[in-house]
Amino acid sequence: MEAKARAPGKIILSGEHAVVHGFTAVAASIDLYTYVSIRFPTPSDNHDMLKLQLKDMGLEFSWPISKIAEVLPESGSQSSSVPISCSVESSKSIAALVEEQNIPEAKIGLASGVSAFLWLYSSIQRFKPATVVVTSELPLGSGLGSSAAFSVALAAALLACTDLVSLDVNDQGWLSFGEKELELVNKWAFEGEKIIHGKPSGIDNTVSTYGNMISFRSGNLTHIRANMPLKMLITNTKVGRNTKALVAGLAERTLRHPDAMSFVFSAVDAISKELAQIIQSPTPDDLSVTEKEGKIEELMEMNQGLLQCMGVSHAAIETVLRTTLKYKLASKLTGAGGGGCVLTLLPTLLSGTVVEKVISELESCGLQCFTAGIGGKGVEISFGVPS
Amino acid sequence: MEAKARAPGKIILSGEHAVVHGFTAVAASIDLYTYVSIRFPTPSDNHDMLKLQLKDMGLEFSWPISKIAEVLPESGSQSSSVPISCSVESSKSIAALVEEQNIPEAKIGLASGVSAFLWLYSSIQRFKPATVVVTSELPLGSGLGSSAAFSVALAAALLACTDLVSLDVNDQGWLSFGEKELELVNKWAFEGEKIIHGKPSGIDNTVSTYGNMISFRSGNLTHIRANMPLKMLITNTKVGRNTKALVAGLAERTLRHPDAMSFVFSAVDAISKELAQIIQSPTPDDLSVTEKEGKIEELMEMNQGLLQCMGVSHAAIETVLRTTLKYKLASKLTGAGGGGCVLTLLPTLLSGTVVEKVISELESCGLQCFTAGIGGKGVEISFGVPS
Repeated sequence: MEAKARAPGKIILSGEHAVVHGFTAVAASIDLYTYVSIRFPTPSDNHDMLKLQLKDMGLEFSWPISKIAEVLPESGSQSSSVPISCSVESSKSIAALVEEQNIPEAKIGLASGVSAFLWLYSSIQRFKPATVVVTSELPLGSGLGSSAAFSVALAAALLACTDLVSLDVNDQGWLSFGEKELELVNKWAFEGEKIIHGKPSGIDNTVSTYGNMISFRSGNLTHIRANMPLKMLITNTKVGRNTKALVAGLAERTLRHPDAMSFVFSAVDAISKELAQIIQSPTPDDLSVTEKEGKIEELMEMNQGLLQCMGVSHAAIETVLRTTLKYKLASKLTGAGGGGCVLTLLPTLLSGTVVEKVISELESCGLQCFTAGIGGKGVEISFGVPS
Repeated sequence: MEAKARAPGKIILSGEHAVVHGFTAVAASIDLYTYVSIRFPTPSDNHDMLKLQLKDMGLEFSWPISKIAEVLPESGSQSSSVPISCSVESSKSIAALVEEQNIPEAKIGLASGVSAFLWLYSSIQRFKPATVVVTSELPLGSGLGSSAAFSVALAAALLACTDLVSLDVNDQGWLSFGEKELELVNKWAFEGEKIIHGKPSGIDNTVSTYGNMISFRSGNLTHIRANMPLKMLITNTKVGRNTKALVAGLAERTLRHPDAMSFVFSAVDAISKELAQIIQSPTPDDLSVTEKEGKIEELMEMNQGLLQCMGVSHAAIETVLRTTLKYKLASKLTGAGGGGCVLTLLPTLLSGTVVEKVISELESCGLQCFTAGIGGKGVEISFGVPS
């Protein structure tokens, strides 16, 4: 049997940075996925290894199951129905297991993801040999929630192979989890995110688990059900960001200009609330989809101006804004800024020819483009023939 | 005798647009001037014409003085110590006087300035033949207050030749007016501005008259005395703006998003107040000039982001921002936006070589650059040999 989970990436529709200062942000899932499949060897396979294949990168890591059982004995001792955090002791053992794999220097950023894998695998599936294959449509480290999608898909695939989850393995296609099962996936994924990020907000894994949209403020999450289709062009500037430095720089600016910045954050808060309201309101209500799209575009432009006011934009982001504006399309950065990705709303009535032109112009600047539906389903699972 | 007045242009340092909605803006004079000189013919000149020469444009208009006295009899009947508005009757007569001059179609925008000239001249100097010569360092209609500088210089030159103003005509160089005289110049200039603009705010003529800086909110003006040198690069995008359409567009955006926009305006208000405070505080106080410049640059960047949030920027403005940012210089649009001029702070310690490079790069994009000292003297007069 093979269990394959897919978990979506996310974008911040509005409110990045302001959310750090206690104001509202809106995040949404995108229909670009990370896939994690698990295959347990048949007796004839005759292997007792745990293998992790990162297909996109052509990398494979493997450990004798006996070695994992030896250095991580506590993993096997608890119930996987109660997610537990990786202890200092275990994280040291895991670090040693990762180190011996000799990850290429250029890919050393993957080490924390491999650590998260070892913790989740050994905690949920104990010491069973298996081959775990990961592929992804999400660019890494660009603010599209690739690590959360990995943690969620991994937790989902692992839990789907336990008796904690009851799904019909003979069903065709992608299956959704029940409410309680989603909660468990989300909690385990959060443990993975903690290993990867240290102090994650929990937003990314929650969006990836539940899909759709989430409004969040001061740690309180509210699920939003979109009542209109929403499609974005996502442009990856491929400029590496230093999120910590951007957040710290803005914190200093806020200390220097407390009055002005508190109004700026409040303006973002109002934008997030209005955006959530527009997206949730029934269509056709007072407004047609086109009218709603116009409002959303205006709110995106306003939010981008406020992000520029915070000093977190970047020349590469401005290039995208300038290019899309030529086609009368509204854009804003998404995530930490200082590089990363830019969102451009693709209105329902926009012709495919225009989209192709914009993409070709952006790609000619060396940028990477994706089109994605916004606010789709969260994590799903399928049981099928190994691919 | 020749009387020559010079009156400075102005920039909006912060708060454009927000001021329309009742929030604080800061305006300052720049050391780019409009010059108006008046020469009365000697008996041997044997002419009884009123001539207006717009030297920069190679235009000359002239009217027989007898004709002006015939169609504008009321002008001669009042005291020039009490500025009076142009009546509907007089404005019709003036329109006819202007029309017969056959202003070239491409320069038809000058007609209202010529009308203002006729009203101020006939009201202050009655029906005396004279030759009035106008030259200017200010680009027209680019938001640098060229019309106000013209009205102020004209009113000053005209009043300097009456007994309402007591200045030593034998003194060399530029002379300043007394407080009461400035008030009279400003009021007459405002009458000129009303003819040119319909409903001027009175800010431009006040800055041009008094120089230095002015903070204004809801019609209340406060004079600010700068305690630090301030130098700007002013780049004219040469993109024509439609101020009324920009103001109306923002008013509509404000109706659509009242919560967000009220916070945006409040943020601008806080920026204007902080800017005024920094500029007025004694140097060296807690902060060196360089530290103050750093704060002003940050406030300019923030204000520009908020202007982008209001939707009043323009591709040509962004080109200037991008270019100056390459040299780590902060810029913002000034005035209505949608084209017009962009300010770039030139820090005291910035090398001349860098300034030259920036200017040459901007000029290679077809833009027009000026460097100007900010917050200098207001209107001044000199009596000298005709040039």
